[in-house]
Amino acid sequence: MTDRLNSWVSSANSAETEFPLNNLPYGVFSSVDRSCHCGVAIGDQILDVTTVADAFDIPANVFASGAWNDFMELGPKTWESFRAALMDRLAEGTDARLELEPHLVAQAEVQLHMPFTVTEFTDFYSGRHHATNVGTMFRGAGNALPPNWLHIPIGYNGRASSIVVSGTDVQRPMGQLKGPNDVLPYFGPSARFDFELELGAIVGTPSNGPISVDQADANIFGYVLLNDWSARDIQAWEYQPLGPFQAKATATTISPWIVTTAALAPFRVHAPERKFELLDHIKDSGPMLFDIALEVDLTTATGKQATISRTNYREMYYSSAQQLAHHTSCGCPMRTGDLLGSGTISGPDKGSHGSMLELSWGGKEPLSLGHGIFRSFIEDGDTISMRGHAIGSGYLIGFGHCAGTILSAQALGFARGIHKGKSRFHLD
Amino acid sequence: MTDRLNSWVSSANSAETEFPLNNLPYGVFSSVDRSCHCGVAIGDQILDVTTVADAFDIPANVFASGAWNDFMELGPKTWESFRAALMDRLAEGTDARLELEPHLVAQAEVQLHMPFTVTEFTDFYSGRHHATNVGTMFRGAGNALPPNWLHIPIGYNGRASSIVVSGTDVQRPMGQLKGPNDVLPYFGPSARFDFELELGAIVGTPSNGPISVDQADANIFGYVLLNDWSARDIQAWEYQPLGPFQAKATATTISPWIVTTAALAPFRVHAPERKFELLDHIKDSGPMLFDIALEVDLTTATGKQATISRTNYREMYYSSAQQLAHHTSCGCPMRTGDLLGSGTISGPDKGSHGSMLELSWGGKEPLSLGHGIFRSFIEDGDTISMRGHAIGSGYLIGFGHCAGTILSAQALGFARGIHKGKSRFHLD
Repeated sequence: MTDRLNSWVSSANSAETEFPLNNLPYGVFSSVDRSCHCGVAIGDQILDVTTVADAFDIPANVFASGAWNDFMELGPKTWESFRAALMDRLAEGTDARLELEPHLVAQAEVQLHMPFTVTEFTDFYSGRHHATNVGTMFRGAGNALPPNWLHIPIGYNGRASSIVVSGTDVQRPMGQLKGPNDVLPYFGPSARFDFELELGAIVGTPSNGPISVDQADANIFGYVLLNDWSARDIQAWEYQPLGPFQAKATATTISPWIVTTAALAPFRVHAPERKFELLDHIKDSGPMLFDIALEVDLTTATGKQATISRTNYREMYYSSAQQLAHHTSCGCPMRTGDLLGSGTISGPDKGSHGSMLELSWGGKEPLSLGHGIFRSFIEDGDTISMRGHAIGSGYLIGFGHCAGTILSAQALGFARGIHKGKSRFHLD
Repeated sequence: MTDRLNSWVSSANSAETEFPLNNLPYGVFSSVDRSCHCGVAIGDQILDVTTVADAFDIPANVFASGAWNDFMELGPKTWESFRAALMDRLAEGTDARLELEPHLVAQAEVQLHMPFTVTEFTDFYSGRHHATNVGTMFRGAGNALPPNWLHIPIGYNGRASSIVVSGTDVQRPMGQLKGPNDVLPYFGPSARFDFELELGAIVGTPSNGPISVDQADANIFGYVLLNDWSARDIQAWEYQPLGPFQAKATATTISPWIVTTAALAPFRVHAPERKFELLDHIKDSGPMLFDIALEVDLTTATGKQATISRTNYREMYYSSAQQLAHHTSCGCPMRTGDLLGSGTISGPDKGSHGSMLELSWGGKEPLSLGHGIFRSFIEDGDTISMRGHAIGSGYLIGFGHCAGTILSAQALGFARGIHKGKSRFHLD
């Protein structure tokens, strides 16, 4: 395990900061005088790399789109050399301080935006405890895991258009619902709205055909925290036979900072023991999970806060590299900016479950938040906030918060404005 | 039903052409001296609108990307005025001939490309005959339709990255497979590779929240023919509980020409009688299916050809407008270039089924192609070609062919080149 590396940005040398020199995660920010610049978090500051790209021999137009995709397209050698240059010039005692210091912006003064443009979004189901818990609830303990589960990372395609950055409010979805006692379905607000604690892997290098697990690992640019908001009641009615659709398309929240695969390297761990030997196309070839401690907080509309889950990403059965390799096995082309959700990360114990569905056991055992407050699922006004930390020797590697507040189904209504798609062309 | 409108492009006045003045579909082509220009098919010619945009008061950069997305973003009023101007200036007897004729390119001399960039791809399952046939095969006639089927358009998210234009070869996928007699799964080529005859609707106008069926209908820019290639054996092993994934991600082929919703207006038909009244968010509000006759040809590697299916898009239970309205019901944002597959279009009779799975009844009744040749599923070297025609009074509205030839699973192998993602930035 590497020790903490010190920076001339003094706030980066605290044992509490998520952004020491060892981390250097990538995000996008705006401030009073900057709109959607690419930045690197260091301590309580951000290095504005849109204004200082030249100093790193990166063409200025690489950051012009206000997203990290164009940088990812430069390829792994540039990822490596850029990170090395950042570590060098932000380190304690370098001459580069004079040049870079004017390009620091205090994190307290910025708004954070989507760090990259999501090309396509795939969500997996690779947490064994989660799949076992859900399977037990729906099919009984004897048939908890589907027959395929221990042989392939089960996944489905989600909606890239619905992905939002931490801090974006999420409106409770409406949907077609049919309870066990209803004769006919009806249309109404989801009453079983849930979070799912996940890690998201970002494809940096595209591929066009099957790739190996090693190649997949190398193609992953970095990771974000991810909350796959899920309407359990919409899903229950719609998911047979083609899987979840509207239940998962309201929003998925990601953390504002991409932690690079390079920054997580000291925290690689092996996958758990295999029940069945995996087939060659997804066989383990090294430690590709990461030791990342995860926590979920729920804060009510009146400000009552409780940590409702503590778990670790190393609990997963399949790594993102195995998921990506499997994803390409049929020839599916992958592109820069594709996002792969890990699946819900639950540990073995009740306090380590990564969804309300598991924490309240399908609503049968409402979870106590203290203060006499209980939750079966998420209520309007609740904020779900996730944090993740790889814990080094005297330092943390973090992603920032991954948080969202639930608005009531009526709050925004039918007439939400169009936030994208305004024409770039002017016609008279 | 409108009569045929005549053009000064004489080949457009034939009763056999798919591209009379009534149609004017949009595509992208290249020729010896043009790379990926936007064009409008008229008879056996293409009007190069990239070079003649000015004459239609369209900013030249709208067509600069070599795709119709930027034009779609201009909005429905521009769609309408541009089409009106095209119909006016390509009509018999206009003075515009002198200006436009130099911008005609013979279709025989061009290569056709993807007509638009697919933002995200959703595939539905809205053909009642198809769903009933598949359900009967897998669950018996008594449980053929899932309980939700008559209440919502069932769909799943597919892979936009895998969509290719007609004429692109398709490699038989490898995948994880487990037959009923296998103790453990294995990795190998799909032995039950299939086509699915569909129509694809293209979202032109974005939305960010629930929209009505009428709004959805207005937001659809146009339609393409679509073949959702499907590996039935990969799907059978992987699809529980989250739906099809690698089974549908090898390729989806679309026709090279987008037929606009406006061109199809004379062929609108009502949906079939409803078993249950549909809920408000997807309730029928007018004729939103189209009378489009469809045919599928199979041609073997040795050139033996047979028409294996004849059906009609009017057989669908849900329209694309209803699918799109449902898609937005949970708040899912839709963007310009989103593509919605209708689901397999099967008629009630054996000769009108839109997939080999149905035509050979799961392989139990191999289909005769004549010449002593039979097919259960698609074999290497087979070409599947689809055509669709709305049949007017003395004219046809067509999409061009939607065709693909199956290469063996070994033909391209592990090392296919990367066709996208080459960096636009040069680093020394």
